Amino acid sequence: MIDGVHVSPRRVIEDPRGDVLHMLKCTDEVFTQFGEVYFSKIHPGQQKAWRRHRVATSQLAVPVGVVHFVLVDDRATSPTRGVRADVTIGETSYALLTIPPMVWYAFENSGSLTAVIGSCSSLPHDPNEADRRELSDSAMPQLAGH
Amino acid sequence: MIDGVHVSPRRVIEDPRGDVLHMLKCTDEVFTQFGEVYFSKIHPGQQKAWRRHRVATSQLAVPVGVVHFVLVDDRATSPTRGVRADVTIGETSYALLTIPPMVWYAFENSGSLTAVIGSCSSLPHDPNEADRRELSDSAMPQLAGH
Repeated sequence: MIDGVHVSPRRVIEDPRGDVLHMLKCTDEVFTQFGEVYFSKIHPGQQKAWRRHRVATSQLAVPVGVVHFVLVDDRATSPTRGVRADVTIGETSYALLTIPPMVWYAFENSGSLTAVIGSCSSLPHDPNEADRRELSDSAMPQLAGH
Repeated sequence: MIDGVHVSPRRVIEDPRGDVLHMLKCTDEVFTQFGEVYFSKIHPGQQKAWRRHRVATSQLAVPVGVVHFVLVDDRATSPTRGVRADVTIGETSYALLTIPPMVWYAFENSGSLTAVIGSCSSLPHDPNEADRRELSDSAMPQLAGH
């Protein structure tokens, strides 16, 4: 796994009226600080790519559907420089994905219904704090190419 | 409206691949502190009731489906003591619902598909910090009885 990336299984409390799914507590070891929480939906077959935060840590959970994340470590001094990680999380494998600053990530819906990503960032959104690359950028891998 | 309760419209950024929905930032006026974020699903026709937090402020958004919340103020010194508030939020009316400590709340799915509530509390979950009452409690109103 990429240095600083964590996949932490999270509890699902089953309830016939509708389940309760844990995501992130201030007492969690992977928690840093709270900046913003928002949702990103992704329809079947769609991809969103690439993004890298310079300062913020991203905490991601998928309470609806299934999402395949691809992470790429090109940090100059990282012990895992050059490593690509594939993480699939969602209703069938419920977990929290922690992505540290300066790690590239992209994701695609790998299920058959619209998925919802709950995203909790250590900083409120600031476009100047994030870098973007197109999905087609030749420096980046293919999402489904593994 | 009940004193201390806020319904704050939140931005939906439309995207053909899947929308992005804002929920809560640390810079928001209604933000207090971060304790925990989790999800509560509720199937069509189902109800979850009643709960009151003694210390925690609850911040609720509904990125999937539509949910009808009923809030009851029985705080002895509240300027709105005795008031009942009905708030329906979700995909058709996207907003953040802020519920201060000591206000009772219950909710029901008022749509036709399973709804998802994103819940951000100022404290991590502590069963000793919350009071519960049954849906059938005669001291409390009927959810759909308005």
